[in-house]
Amino acid sequence: MQPLRLVLVRSAEARERLVATMAGGNKAKTAAAPLAVILAADLNFHEEFHKTFPHLPGVKDWFAEETARAQAAKFNGALQVGYFILGVRAAGLAAGPMTGFDADALNKEFFGDGEHTVLAVVNIGKPGDKAWFDRNPRLEFEQVATTV
Amino acid sequence: MQPLRLVLVRSAEARERLVATMAGGNKAKTAAAPLAVILAADLNFHEEFHKTFPHLPGVKDWFAEETARAQAAKFNGALQVGYFILGVRAAGLAAGPMTGFDADALNKEFFGDGEHTVLAVVNIGKPGDKAWFDRNPRLEFEQVATTV
Repeated sequence: MQPLRLVLVRSAEARERLVATMAGGNKAKTAAAPLAVILAADLNFHEEFHKTFPHLPGVKDWFAEETARAQAAKFNGALQVGYFILGVRAAGLAAGPMTGFDADALNKEFFGDGEHTVLAVVNIGKPGDKAWFDRNPRLEFEQVATTV
Repeated sequence: MQPLRLVLVRSAEARERLVATMAGGNKAKTAAAPLAVILAADLNFHEEFHKTFPHLPGVKDWFAEETARAQAAKFNGALQVGYFILGVRAAGLAAGPMTGFDADALNKEFFGDGEHTVLAVVNIGKPGDKAWFDRNPRLEFEQVATTV
């Protein structure tokens, strides 16, 4: 489906506009990161199906209904956010994903068209010394998996 | 947040119940896969925060509101689905993720509690010869990324 769209926030001017929409605890690190990327879902991803599904001309019509299409955009976009985070880390860089921001303000500031919805902002760079919190505990396998 | 829950569908009886909820084109491969896994979001993932965020006792209250909590469960669950798919593939197995199923029926059949929502079903195994369709075209970098 490929709904994910990236905005690479490089200029000081754009970085300032981004930081203004971030939650308090995320402002300083977003201002300081070597690169900040806005990851958004294109709610009209089906318009690209002639490129991404050339073998199935009718598939665009499967996503004619707006609510279901938005849901598919967000779910498949979130999968791509997961791939993006692991891709950045596989490339040897640190990725700091955040969802603490004013989503309406961020959408309006960077996507005035109403056709995109921001999913996450990811700070990227080489981590400094002791840049990390301790890893939080994970749920045990038995707590998250059942066999039927 | 760790909202993802897995149901490993191993028994013939459970596999039959799963296949009954899958869309037509997904039935045969779900019946034949060595393992089928139902990936669902726990809508009350915040109940586990005493285990997963022990350093921040008040965080459970941030997710008191049901609609926002469901949204967080689905988004973070989808990230975990992305990690799960790449994890299976990194382990040398094939992962076939599907969202073509009757979600209401599937939720009801495997999670009668109304506290979970199925995100995807993933078939897992070693692929046979010529198991794959050709890779679909990807959008170009310039089509999905802008720099500001």
